[in-house]
Amino acid sequence: MIRIAIIGYGNLGRGVETAIKKTDDTELVGIFTRRDPLTVKAKAGKVYSMADLYDKKNEIDVCILCGGSATDLPVQTPELTKIFNTVDSFDTHAKIPEHYSVIDDTAKKNSTVSIISVGWDPGLFSINRAYAESILPDGETVTFWGKGVSQGHSDALRRIDGIKDAIQYTIPNNDIIDRLKVGEHLELSTRDKHTRECFIVLEDGADEAAIIEKIVTMPNYFNEYDTTVNVITQEELEKNHKQKMPHGGKVLRVGQTSKQNKEIYDFSLALDSNPEFTSSTLVAYARACARLAEEKKYGAYTVLDIAPSYISPKSGADLRKELL
Amino acid sequence: MIRIAIIGYGNLGRGVETAIKKTDDTELVGIFTRRDPLTVKAKAGKVYSMADLYDKKNEIDVCILCGGSATDLPVQTPELTKIFNTVDSFDTHAKIPEHYSVIDDTAKKNSTVSIISVGWDPGLFSINRAYAESILPDGETVTFWGKGVSQGHSDALRRIDGIKDAIQYTIPNNDIIDRLKVGEHLELSTRDKHTRECFIVLEDGADEAAIIEKIVTMPNYFNEYDTTVNVITQEELEKNHKQKMPHGGKVLRVGQTSKQNKEIYDFSLALDSNPEFTSSTLVAYARACARLAEEKKYGAYTVLDIAPSYISPKSGADLRKELL
Repeated sequence: MIRIAIIGYGNLGRGVETAIKKTDDTELVGIFTRRDPLTVKAKAGKVYSMADLYDKKNEIDVCILCGGSATDLPVQTPELTKIFNTVDSFDTHAKIPEHYSVIDDTAKKNSTVSIISVGWDPGLFSINRAYAESILPDGETVTFWGKGVSQGHSDALRRIDGIKDAIQYTIPNNDIIDRLKVGEHLELSTRDKHTRECFIVLEDGADEAAIIEKIVTMPNYFNEYDTTVNVITQEELEKNHKQKMPHGGKVLRVGQTSKQNKEIYDFSLALDSNPEFTSSTLVAYARACARLAEEKKYGAYTVLDIAPSYISPKSGADLRKELL
Repeated sequence: MIRIAIIGYGNLGRGVETAIKKTDDTELVGIFTRRDPLTVKAKAGKVYSMADLYDKKNEIDVCILCGGSATDLPVQTPELTKIFNTVDSFDTHAKIPEHYSVIDDTAKKNSTVSIISVGWDPGLFSINRAYAESILPDGETVTFWGKGVSQGHSDALRRIDGIKDAIQYTIPNNDIIDRLKVGEHLELSTRDKHTRECFIVLEDGADEAAIIEKIVTMPNYFNEYDTTVNVITQEELEKNHKQKMPHGGKVLRVGQTSKQNKEIYDFSLALDSNPEFTSSTLVAYARACARLAEEKKYGAYTVLDIAPSYISPKSGADLRKELL
């Protein structure tokens, strides 16, 4: 059994707890939190204070870090990788090379293994971008996201004066996807690929027209997109937009293998629960992490460095027989 | 530069010649054939007799074996792996474990590397079956093929007395795919997943009704499917069904991450040219083969044992920066 510790108990931590139960070869040692453990209600796992983590060193094979990429993981992953094998879902794309470099040094110095930026993007989408362009070098890869909630864009809405609460959906342009699939060569702008749909709850007395104008013209977040804004009640927001966290998307590559032949590589995810799927990916890569540590292949890895067989509970012989 | 020899010059060999030209880091040493080299017209590469292959040992990093799985590869891959690093597309699913075991012994004894069963199924589809079930253990994977020509089924038609020539298309049942994607739990029979469409040319005086009856009731090949038969002229067959070799398909897994949430993993290929795509895959894995040999990691591998980064011409740092 691979003994896993969950570090941090938000949506992702809860998802990891559920995902471990779906496997036969991993088990939960405990949930470790910076909060008072008595205030954290887990589904079934034991909750400990972060201060107790180091005492349990010999009971833990892999720590799955379930904090956020903005402030938690840049500190936690290097810190914990000094002692433990770790898996994180660091997803600030532009900072991955720096994060990798810090963790790789730490892991090599301390004889640990860390797999960073696990999930679906970065993660499975990265893997598919790599396979697609390696096999079809003469082509173009386009990634589409959604339909799904963008946490960053929802936060940007909530920071506007007069907005009480908000959810933002990123929606892929299916017409563009269909045109790419029949082989059209398109020069795509940001606006062509996705639209943005906002559901906002206003504070009493807020100026609706001014707020909508502010949203659709907001630089970086909305001005480069076709954005629609729907004003709804808090009740509607809770009921229709906060119960599930759906997401997904598509990596599409159209490549020419010769002048007359084009080949379409299409990988898609449609997720009822973004955090539960990401968590399931984290648990699969915790399996790879434990194996690499057992093989003493210390250092940092990304999903691109890990062979598919490493994340499967099946033996090589079974994989060849059943899946190949 | 990775120096590649093509062994055998049919559709696959021609595809490899074209695929090499699409890369910046592989080059063609030559095409080696069992036929009289003077009778083989290559696009641009030099054609040699198989007898000359061993003399060129020091000029070749990887041999890509482009023969058939029925009789060529079971003999050629073990034979050539004694001297060369090899990549093949052995696709008789049931015999892969045996083929692997023979090649693994040979490669380890002779300090070579061989990657077997490369292509899209076995190949990319196997990879996606492995990722999908490892990440979503509580679910069901279904593989669909087509629309595309089945060589085996076309051959079966051609063996029937009274049939002069024929092409058979395997067609996936899109209605079933749509129902799986919305989360329906279906007990699928062979008949539910695919239909078969035959285009046949009759010999003069053949009994059309009797032949059609013979086709639709043929055990293993057609009796378990809904099969339609179209009688056409040789001219129509050549013009409408032999110019391109399209194929493709889909690996679909619907998995539950919790009682209330299902996640859909969907990998699809739509290929204008089945052999050209397979060839492009072979060239990408020739890159991995050369690297593994350089690292002295001798033995046999399948695509499941190879990390995505190994088939990319990009460095680890560039992959992290550009694709992750």
